[in-house]
Amino acid sequence: MQFRAILRIVGLLVALFSVTMLAPAIVAVIYKDGAGRDFISAFLIALFSGLSLWFPNRYYKSELKAKDGFLIVVLFWTVLGSVGSLPFLISEQPKMNVAESFFESFSGLTTTGATVITGLDNLPKAILFYRQMLQWLGGMGIIVLAVAVLPILGIGGMQLYRAETPGPVKDSKMTPRIAETAKALWYIYLCLTIACMLAFWLAGMSLFDAICHSFSTVAIGGFSTHDASMGFFNSPLINLITVVFLIISGFNFALHFAAFGNHGMRLKVYLKDPEVRAFLYIQLALTVICFSVLAAHQTYDSLEQSLDQALFQAVSISTTAGFSTTSFSDWPLFLPVLLVFSSFIGGCAGSTGGGMKVIRVLLLNLQGFRELKRLVHPRAIYKIKLGKKAVPDKVVEAVWGFFSAYALVFVICMLALIATGMEELSAFSAVVATLNNLGPGLGEVAVHFGETSDASKWILVLAMLFGRLEIFTLLVLFTPVYWKS
Amino acid sequence: MQFRAILRIVGLLVALFSVTMLAPAIVAVIYKDGAGRDFISAFLIALFSGLSLWFPNRYYKSELKAKDGFLIVVLFWTVLGSVGSLPFLISEQPKMNVAESFFESFSGLTTTGATVITGLDNLPKAILFYRQMLQWLGGMGIIVLAVAVLPILGIGGMQLYRAETPGPVKDSKMTPRIAETAKALWYIYLCLTIACMLAFWLAGMSLFDAICHSFSTVAIGGFSTHDASMGFFNSPLINLITVVFLIISGFNFALHFAAFGNHGMRLKVYLKDPEVRAFLYIQLALTVICFSVLAAHQTYDSLEQSLDQALFQAVSISTTAGFSTTSFSDWPLFLPVLLVFSSFIGGCAGSTGGGMKVIRVLLLNLQGFRELKRLVHPRAIYKIKLGKKAVPDKVVEAVWGFFSAYALVFVICMLALIATGMEELSAFSAVVATLNNLGPGLGEVAVHFGETSDASKWILVLAMLFGRLEIFTLLVLFTPVYWKS
Ligand SMILES: [K+]
Ligand SMILES: [K+]
Repeated sequence: MQFRAILRIVGLLVALFSVTMLAPAIVAVIYKDGAGRDFISAFLIALFSGLSLWFPNRYYKSELKAKDGFLIVVLFWTVLGSVGSLPFLISEQPKMNVAESFFESFSGLTTTGATVITGLDNLPKAILFYRQMLQWLGGMGIIVLAVAVLPILGIGGMQLYRAETPGPVKDSKMTPRIAETAKALWYIYLCLTIACMLAFWLAGMSLFDAICHSFSTVAIGGFSTHDASMGFFNSPLINLITVVFLIISGFNFALHFAAFGNHGMRLKVYLKDPEVRAFLYIQLALTVICFSVLAAHQTYDSLEQSLDQALFQAVSISTTAGFSTTSFSDWPLFLPVLLVFSSFIGGCAGSTGGGMKVIRVLLLNLQGFRELKRLVHPRAIYKIKLGKKAVPDKVVEAVWGFFSAYALVFVICMLALIATGMEELSAFSAVVATLNNLGPGLGEVAVHFGETSDASKWILVLAMLFGRLEIFTLLVLFTPVYWKS
Repeated sequence: MQFRAILRIVGLLVALFSVTMLAPAIVAVIYKDGAGRDFISAFLIALFSGLSLWFPNRYYKSELKAKDGFLIVVLFWTVLGSVGSLPFLISEQPKMNVAESFFESFSGLTTTGATVITGLDNLPKAILFYRQMLQWLGGMGIIVLAVAVLPILGIGGMQLYRAETPGPVKDSKMTPRIAETAKALWYIYLCLTIACMLAFWLAGMSLFDAICHSFSTVAIGGFSTHDASMGFFNSPLINLITVVFLIISGFNFALHFAAFGNHGMRLKVYLKDPEVRAFLYIQLALTVICFSVLAAHQTYDSLEQSLDQALFQAVSISTTAGFSTTSFSDWPLFLPVLLVFSSFIGGCAGSTGGGMKVIRVLLLNLQGFRELKRLVHPRAIYKIKLGKKAVPDKVVEAVWGFFSAYALVFVICMLALIATGMEELSAFSAVVATLNNLGPGLGEVAVHFGETSDASKWILVLAMLFGRLEIFTLLVLFTPVYWKS
């Protein structure tokens, strides 16, 4: 393990991250909301911390190995999450304790979008902007992580994408390739954000709201500048724009890379991708189910309104954005539980969405069908295929390992929450909301997490991290074999 | 498919099963409880139905193929479950509608032990005896199914036991081998029942209660002749006897066969078995956790009482017996949810216990650890081993298929229950209680299922069947590929 080289990188990251806090400071100046000083303080503390990590290790530039990647990725999220809590800790409005500040910061950076703050509409614009920016930066980090880093680490079957991602991967040296890929992804992400922002603005949002909500939409984060979330705008057009950009952001960004690469636009790559097809099919199926039940129960006055709400909530929850218009947790029958369960599937691998990812659920299903066929014809040989390519057994095994680890972490977090005194349904849905990086739950956490105890907030922060780091990246650090050699 | 040969077997089974209804009729005569006529009627209807299935097909004795096994097993449970509901339908006390009768009968035969009846203590002895007998017969059926049939069918990784079970398995002809194995298993099961009955009797139960509870103990069924279940006896000695016999019945019966086979007693086979070791370790861990929390919260007056209750409830729930003394659903903190979750593990394969079975959970864990090791050393080759034997990849894959199918059936049943209007926690625990063949749940189904709607009773009957038939046996019948050829 190259500890000092890793410390150097983390120090640089923190220093770089500290600069982003100047953006909300500028917002504070524009709106004269008085929060500017807090962000300048946070900037200085973060910058100083970063430099003091970097300075003593500045000459340790040795090439990092794939194995070091696990530690760097975990440090990336935990350190930035901690540093990101500074403005919340410092600010007087809202006044937040340590657990609340960390919860809000990690919820932002992991693009979970669960909040402990109420009364958003009356907060300083700088704080509101900062929360949205955290999600946007987190979304950026996730894409690089999922497209460039996880395939190299081979987390949960993601070696499947190793051959498909751009650039040569013959060696285990990470740095140059990741930097190159990251730059291209960042460009796509930025373009998408600008397009989303313009669409929101033209649809009637204020420029500030358009920027803020474009941040949390492309990051599939779900933070809003209003307590009523997207419901504040009460606009089917804005709902539809949100749906479109959530779905685009729910695609694998490696596909965007392939579609808008050097050879001009090639939209066929989307429809040829089995994961995208499954993803779109899931959105469609959920919308149809929600619409049918809502229409049959006459929950809304008109069919148009039912369709608007069904489409928006189905996509918002199943992609794990977690925006709300109406409170879907009050919808009839099994709809709230169905939608909450759908967040286990989440977005495509390599997207900003959470959950277990469509590709993994797809592989689990294909394997399930194979078992059924094997029972009838025990001697026949069935290969699992995605599109026309056979999936290696190792990938399928890794996906299974991922699935069971996911289930295990889920159960442990839920038991821990109940031990802090949380009621069962709330504990269940709180873990769903955080592990899947969804945001809202059911029961007492249907709207916000302000009423939960400090102990449960820390557990949920851990659940967000486990979800965002695809379980294994974090779990592997707890094995003795990782630290040996 | 050899439909007429299958009908012949089912007819014979029903006729044979009808004869068992004479036993409660005899009980009715002894206790003069007036229920005798109902059982005679049920006997005659069942006998006539069986014979009329058998008679037209009596010459179709063609050899059955492994593939036919799926249909026979499913018919065995569905047809006997339906015929078994006759006495409940006919009887005036208790007065039960169709859904209730089927629920009670399937709950008995699948050894689930969930009941819709309250006021057990005042029912005719014959009905009480019949319920316990249903569990005992069901337990017998399960052992034969799990030890002799499922390994041949290769359900969910159970081909693992194919080589270990007694008798030659070179060919795919099922009948002679199953009959031979079944006879040996029946003998062990009978001896175990008699030992359990004597122990209960000597510990102070009435002879009637001793017989009845020995039936539901060795079947890991959980039905009782009293509303207060085992709590009625209020005896730490009886609790301990129950625990001992539940654990013995939770072992793989193929091990009992090996330990008490032709070569004298060989108790070493138990301790050398990795599944038994894991099973015992789970019981110990759960007992320690429950005891610690109960003692810390001073839920009971003395430490002895805490230990008694912790041991009894931990074993009763985690082996999926579902007997209760006190209401464990009122225990502090996460204990109720922990115990309910532990029923997902259940007993060993080839036992009368429910759940996913210890061996499968063990394999899932080993695979999870392998994935972690693979992440650190991607090029190393790790084999999954049980004891000293490497487990074939096909078995591991089959276990994964089982796990995901289990999760899928779970979610669908839970959503269906919520659609009937059941509240979320109750729906969740009702599916746990039935799919794992456990019995009691939490919330409104913590004690009995009498308050649930008829629609939800039918859903739960399906869940019991899915659990008992290890998902795939039933699921495979819904695939087109099964019915082709
Ligand atoms: K989210
Ligand atoms: K049971």
